[in-house]
Amino acid sequence: MTTFDFALLHRDEAGSARRGRLMTRRGPVETPAFMPVGTQGTVKGMLPEALEDLGAQIILGNTYHLFLRPGHELIARLGGLHRFMNWDRPILTDSGGFQVFSLGDLRRIDETGVRFQSHLDGSSHVLTPERSVEIQEALGADIIMAFDECIPYPAERGYVAASTDRSSRWARRCREARRSDDGAALFGIVQGGMFRDLREKSVAELLEIGFDGYAVGGLSVGEDAGLMYDMMDYTLPLLPADRPRYVMGVGTPENLVEGIARGVDMFDCVMPTRNARNGVLFTRFGRISIKQARYAEDPQPIDPDCGCYVCRHYSRSYLRHLYRAKEILAAVLNTHHNLHYYLQLMTEARSAIETGSFNQFRRNFYALRETEDVVSPRPNRPRRKINESVRSD
Amino acid sequence: MTTFDFALLHRDEAGSARRGRLMTRRGPVETPAFMPVGTQGTVKGMLPEALEDLGAQIILGNTYHLFLRPGHELIARLGGLHRFMNWDRPILTDSGGFQVFSLGDLRRIDETGVRFQSHLDGSSHVLTPERSVEIQEALGADIIMAFDECIPYPAERGYVAASTDRSSRWARRCREARRSDDGAALFGIVQGGMFRDLREKSVAELLEIGFDGYAVGGLSVGEDAGLMYDMMDYTLPLLPADRPRYVMGVGTPENLVEGIARGVDMFDCVMPTRNARNGVLFTRFGRISIKQARYAEDPQPIDPDCGCYVCRHYSRSYLRHLYRAKEILAAVLNTHHNLHYYLQLMTEARSAIETGSFNQFRRNFYALRETEDVVSPRPNRPRRKINESVRSD
Repeated sequence: MTTFDFALLHRDEAGSARRGRLMTRRGPVETPAFMPVGTQGTVKGMLPEALEDLGAQIILGNTYHLFLRPGHELIARLGGLHRFMNWDRPILTDSGGFQVFSLGDLRRIDETGVRFQSHLDGSSHVLTPERSVEIQEALGADIIMAFDECIPYPAERGYVAASTDRSSRWARRCREARRSDDGAALFGIVQGGMFRDLREKSVAELLEIGFDGYAVGGLSVGEDAGLMYDMMDYTLPLLPADRPRYVMGVGTPENLVEGIARGVDMFDCVMPTRNARNGVLFTRFGRISIKQARYAEDPQPIDPDCGCYVCRHYSRSYLRHLYRAKEILAAVLNTHHNLHYYLQLMTEARSAIETGSFNQFRRNFYALRETEDVVSPRPNRPRRKINESVRSD
Repeated sequence: MTTFDFALLHRDEAGSARRGRLMTRRGPVETPAFMPVGTQGTVKGMLPEALEDLGAQIILGNTYHLFLRPGHELIARLGGLHRFMNWDRPILTDSGGFQVFSLGDLRRIDETGVRFQSHLDGSSHVLTPERSVEIQEALGADIIMAFDECIPYPAERGYVAASTDRSSRWARRCREARRSDDGAALFGIVQGGMFRDLREKSVAELLEIGFDGYAVGGLSVGEDAGLMYDMMDYTLPLLPADRPRYVMGVGTPENLVEGIARGVDMFDCVMPTRNARNGVLFTRFGRISIKQARYAEDPQPIDPDCGCYVCRHYSRSYLRHLYRAKEILAAVLNTHHNLHYYLQLMTEARSAIETGSFNQFRRNFYALRETEDVVSPRPNRPRRKINESVRSD
């Protein structure tokens, strides 16, 4: 059984960007990597083969959703999540913590774990660190995430300190609950809200336990992009250079470029897939909303510079028609294009780091993003709320 | 410009089944052929390339829907329906008559045509034989259907006689409205309800006008399968052997086999695609409803004898999960399988006619269809009503 490892291949000389490779039991993942979100055992609207063609090397699955439906034990009996969904590349699963904490009145927390009611049928369940690991192992995850609380923003210092301490104790229980010999990785998750000293304390406690990789959680939860970058700037250098770094639930293309510049290796976000279903499409010039009347008779592809299947074959006019007619193909084609955009951005970033031109890449990225088509005038400022469940799609 | 033609390649010696080939300006169509329905410029949930891979050689587009949204003139300015939807094989369009007649209180008929209100926004429009031909030409249809009334069942003889006469007059106006030099075919549509003499009169009037092919309309509108087959038995021999015969809006796999046995060359129906979206899947053993609890943990493919992409890669358990979770991929995979079933059935029927074994094929078809999985205990008895719009999907 191959055990998990991480190789650091290139470092940007002028900054902190890194080019690396995860070695998982189901093959390599080139980093920096973006992980499409496959909440319910499918990346919405995408055939697994199409995801592979787009260059996705790893996807994310949601423990909370799969635990409730169809159930991790059923998936295990059918040979695991990979076989169930016809995807044989690596899968990272979240711990379910994010979703159960988001349930509000439907959950109760104590030191043991979280008691919650299913959003599907109101049935009562308990998720603990041990149970979360057990579920993720049953699903067959190649990277297992520790069970933690993703702290909302804003939050008071007292709450953040207590929650972060508890997440550290839960992280230790996750480590102890792990079977040792199946080759899957276990990642710890740094919390601490927007308080530097609490981030530092969280890192220290996780390092003492020891994990295969380290995630930075509790970002992109409603704070300014500037504050999010400050937290990355402060937290990432505290993490060991020879372990992968994953910023969870992030983000916009700008967030990805800024994260890479600060040394992040892994990202996940529902943004490309969920936006696609809402008719919002990414281009190197900015985002466009395909439902707008200006595209009614526009024969151009989404992005004339894009080489993806959708841009090679379909006009904005057709995509607007599909969207307005609520056709299934609207979601399929829009998702395909947006994931191509995200994955291509990562490919270009990796190449830029390898050739020592990441700063040039970053400047070009911003230089192109000036068009009247842009939906959001402040793309660096995510308007998501934590309750919008940015980590399940 | 290639003009439309039809070649009769084989005739079943023991019966009326025929093996032929449509020669259209966009390439050949082997018959008997099934045409997937692409109502709004897309066969719901299917990429055009996937349709091609399944062997679809021609699809059907709906004039009524495309006229209202996005509009035939817009589609024409963007290069026609083929280019708009990225499909370069033949397209047959219906005339829109079926839909406008189905609008009930929203339409008013006179000799000129039908005034109706859009089901989308209530806007007022007029469809006439000339206008229907003009729209179908603007869309770029390779086979244009005459504008007629599809008579509901049951209907009184007086109404059927008057309606059929009017449809004949409209058929002549369609013929006169056709441009002569674009290579597209024009098909007339036999009406006459369930009255043999009115069917005979309709055929005679259409033959006098002269068409590239002849459709039998007004079937599968609520009548018993037995009555439908009687009407086919009576009507089809009246049509010229050297012209293609198309039975519109039909039907179940059983209907297709029985239609082929009676000399039908072309079919269309929403049954495989719409049923797919409702979780009803076709197998050679009968239909199964994937939502049933019995499939919750079933590791088998939909049909163990099926070689399609879905059956090679996915279990009934996974497909049930996708359906229950309302995932886009449920519609995509189910539609793929059902269209594979329909198109494969036609491939096998063509091969059987070629090798003189069609009766054997037909016996085998029925022999296999005995399983407890079958959804409908009387699969030969369609339960559709005309208002369910069996010709748009």
